[in-house]
Parts: sequence; C-alpha cells; structure tokens
Amino acid sequence: MAQLSVEQFLNEQKRAVEAALSSYMARLRGPETLKKAMAYSLEAGGKRIRPLLLLATIQALGKDPAIGLPVACAIEMIHTYSLIHDDLPSMDNDDLRRGKPTNHKVFGEAMAILAGDALLTYAFQLIAEVDDDRVPPSVRLQLIEQLAKAAGPEGMVAGQAADMEAEGKTLALAELEYIHRHKTGKMLQYSVHAGALLGGADGRQTRELNEFAAHLGLAFQIRDDILDIEGMEEKIGKRVGSDRDNKKATYPALLSLGGAKEKLAFHIDAAKRHLQQAKIDDAVLVYICELVAVRDH
Amino acid sequence: MAQLSVEQFLNEQKRAVEAALSSYMARLRGPETLKKAMAYSLEAGGKRIRPLLLLATIQALGKDPAIGLPVACAIEMIHTYSLIHDDLPSMDNDDLRRGKPTNHKVFGEAMAILAGDALLTYAFQLIAEVDDDRVPPSVRLQLIEQLAKAAGPEGMVAGQAADMEAEGKTLALAELEYIHRHKTGKMLQYSVHAGALLGGADGRQTRELNEFAAHLGLAFQIRDDILDIEGMEEKIGKRVGSDRDNKKATYPALLSLGGAKEKLAFHIDAAKRHLQQAKIDDAVLVYICELVAVRDH
Repeated sequence: MAQLSVEQFLNEQKRAVEAALSSYMARLRGPETLKKAMAYSLEAGGKRIRPLLLLATIQALGKDPAIGLPVACAIEMIHTYSLIHDDLPSMDNDDLRRGKPTNHKVFGEAMAILAGDALLTYAFQLIAEVDDDRVPPSVRLQLIEQLAKAAGPEGMVAGQAADMEAEGKTLALAELEYIHRHKTGKMLQYSVHAGALLGGADGRQTRELNEFAAHLGLAFQIRDDILDIEGMEEKIGKRVGSDRDNKKATYPALLSLGGAKEKLAFHIDAAKRHLQQAKIDDAVLVYICELVAVRDH
Repeated sequence: MAQLSVEQFLNEQKRAVEAALSSYMARLRGPETLKKAMAYSLEAGGKRIRPLLLLATIQALGKDPAIGLPVACAIEMIHTYSLIHDDLPSMDNDDLRRGKPTNHKVFGEAMAILAGDALLTYAFQLIAEVDDDRVPPSVRLQLIEQLAKAAGPEGMVAGQAADMEAEGKTLALAELEYIHRHKTGKMLQYSVHAGALLGGADGRQTRELNEFAAHLGLAFQIRDDILDIEGMEEKIGKRVGSDRDNKKATYPALLSLGGAKEKLAFHIDAAKRHLQQAKIDDAVLVYICELVAVRDH
C-alpha cells in the first residue's frame, strides 16, 4: 500500500469508527445528562489508535475491517471510561484532556463516575449483540472474555491501581514496566489480538502479532513520557511537565532522556520485526509504528 | 417444599454463592490492595437476594441451580460495584454500609473507584468463560447482552443518574417509579430472567417470571423506603431517616406511610399471582416474596 493510500485508509476507518460511535450513542434511551456526559468524552476526538490498530490488523489479514466496528467501538468506550475515571479529583485530578475541560469539570464528579460506568458496561453489550452470521458466537465470547481480562483487575485496572500505589515512590524499571504493560499495554494488545481473532490469523501470526503489540505498547508509553518533557503544551492539550511535578516514575527519569529514546527505538524495531515475521499485508501497521515513534501529541 | 427445606435450600445456596465468590477472588493475580478492596465489599455479607433469586428460579424450573453459580457471582459483583460507587463522597457520601465502614472510608476514594470498575469488568469475564457444555455459547451471549442492558446506561446506571438529578426536586409517582424500575428493578429482573434462560423456561413462563420480578422489584424498593422510616438502625446497619434528611423522594413521602404499605401489599400479591401462573415449583420464590414483604433489614 502506498503511503497516500495508507493515510487514506486510516482516515476512512477513523471516520467509520466515529460514525459508529455516534450511532451507538444516538440509539440509547435514558437520562439526557448521562448520555451527554458519555458522548462528551467519547466524541472529544483523540487519535483512536486502539480502534485503528484493530481495524488495520483485520485488513492486514485480508478481511473486511467493517466486521470489527462493534469491537472497535467497545475498545474506544473502555479507553474513554478509563480516561474519565483517571481524571477525577481523587485520581489524577486533571482539569484538561485533549484541550477541553475534563468530564467531571463539565458534568460534576458523580455524573462523570456514572458516565464511565455506563461506557464500560455498554462496551460489552456491543460485542454480545453482533449478529451470529457476522461474527460467530464462539468468537464473540472469546472477544468478550479477552476484553474483560485486558480491561479488568488483571489488566488495565491492575495497572492503574499499581500506578496509584507507586506515586511518590522510587520504582525499579521492572515495576515501571509492570504498570505500563497493564495500564496502557493490555488494551493496546487486546486491540491487535481482537483483530487477529476477527481476521482469522493462524497460530504463528497470532503469536507474532501479540509480540508486535507488546512492543508497540511499551513504545507508546515511552513516547508519552518523552512528550511530557519535550512536547508542546498546545499540541498535547494538557499541561506539560506534570509527571515531574507529580514525582511520577517515568522512563526518562529512570534511564535519562537519551536512554529512553534508545529504548523507544528498540521497541519500535522489535515491533516491526515481529510484523515482518507475521507475513501479512503490514503497510498500515508499519505506518502506525512510525506514528507512535514520532508522534508529537 | 416444606418451609424448613426452603430455608435450608436458601442457606445452602447462599453458602455456595459465597464460596464461589471467594474462589473467583482467590484466583485473581494483581495488586494486593486492589484485590483487598474488591473482596472487602464483596465479602461484606448482605442478603445475596439477587443471586438467590437466580438460583431459586433455576430450581423452580427443575434444573440444577449449580449451573447458575457463575452468573450469580457476576450479578453480585455488579450489585457490589454499584454500592461502592454509590457510597462515594460525590454520590451519596455514606460512611457506613451493612454496619461496616464503606469502601472508600477504608481504601480511599481512588481505590474504591477502581475496585468498582474491576468488579464490573470481572463480572462479564465470569459469564464469558463458562464451559460450552455447561452453558451453550448462544445462551452465554444472551446472558451477557441482557446483563449489560440491565446494568448499563439503559438500566441500573440510568436509574442512578435519574435519581441524582431528582435530588431536591418534587417527583411525581411516575418519575419515582422510573428511578426504581431502573436503579434496583432492572438487576432484580435480570436475576430472574437469567434464571429463566438457564432453567429453560418456555415463552409463557418467561413472561410470567418477568412480571413476577417487576412487581417484586417495586415491592423491594417500597419496603426499603418504609424501613428508612420504621427500621431499627442496628438491623439495617446504616443511618435511619437519611432519605428524609436528604429530601429524597420516597413512596411514604408521596403516598403517606399507609399508602406505601398498601402499595407494597399490592405488588407482593401481583408477584405471587404471576408466579402461580408460571406453573413452576415456586415454593422458594414465594418464600422470597414474603421475605421482601416483611424484611426488617
């Protein structure tokens, strides 16, 4: 795939995800404020990196990415709920997210908690209710089980809990990696793994794609830490330097800025190598690797 | 079933649910504090009315209630998460629950939010991972879809959002019923509906059981409101009179205490009538109706 068509593919898929998210929200009946609070954060933009990873993986395996839209939306809902709860005063206490006031700043803490709960719950409904002839029951059950594992007390929530407990402490690199492998890594890995399932990957492809996703997830987090030092406030849409202010353990803090950049390059290379070994049509996934390596927000 | 064996059945099933909950918690790997916070509220006791409704419905249809244990635990986890989040300072701001300090009083707000998120997510995993030969894939998917609907933005969370928005306002009876049909009703109804699914109820039995559950749910809530006025603090384990202090809309406030008691009796009668029409072995379910009608905590 030529670079232009890769970008075109990603733009089209991003629009498809956002249209699907809107239609899932539009059909909901319930208290207006709750729906508004859910939609506010869901439609606040963002890179949609997780849904795109899922859809690109399906495409790389030669299947129609459209079969992945419900799961792509479920993933984005879970990611969004985690941001809403993470921003709460008792958690990270952030006022801005993607350049806009955080959910609880607009709707109040109680409604923000409920909006997060609602998005998390709705995500599972989206996958369960897909038609049998679109995605067979056994595959939907695997998608649900893996999603719960990736998002729950052995996945993303474990990472958030560990992150919280680590605040103000000096961490070893292994502890920092535990946090990231769970807090951001598990859901990124799930996105690729769900794509492998839906795209009909064989055993070897699934293993290589899992490795690809693990390295990409760490690269993503290292880049995030680097951006917190080097990034420009207006591009990121949140305050820069907050990690240092919060005395958070980061890769640059543990490895120096240069060491962190080396580690980023190592994980990006490893991610690409595993992609190659998967022997799939990997142009879009390689492009996503490069986006993660050089992204400025 | 004689009354003694009804009580025996309920005690046995309650123990089975609590043993299953403990074993689901014991196998979790993750940050210790997160697991402790989840287990603290999950193992804080309570009547386990929702799991018991599910298991009693399966038994009433002549099937082995043990097939319902994973779903019973999922229901109790979702109920527990909703209590943890509901008790938070930005929500109801309760310090006591079942006579013990609330989750955030022991573990802090951030960990309480995460423990709730984790329980909600884990619930879906429990149902998804049941063996195919125990509960077929299509039934598990229905159970997951219905659970998400009952708990999510068109179910329990809708009720909580509506309840929050109603605070300090004068409600009509229809608005009060909307809140209760969602906040407590949907999960009680789900418990019976899931039992009907697992027990292999036919169409007519399913309809009657749904009606039974709807009336039982309202009765449950009316009794709760009455208890807030008449109950003894030490039995309920939380402060009595808090609804009036919080200017909350309640059945006694709208209908007078006598009117509320009449409405309670009406719904209990209707619930029993629908049970009769379902033509099942309903001794345990009838007993649960009576428990709800006269419970003192």
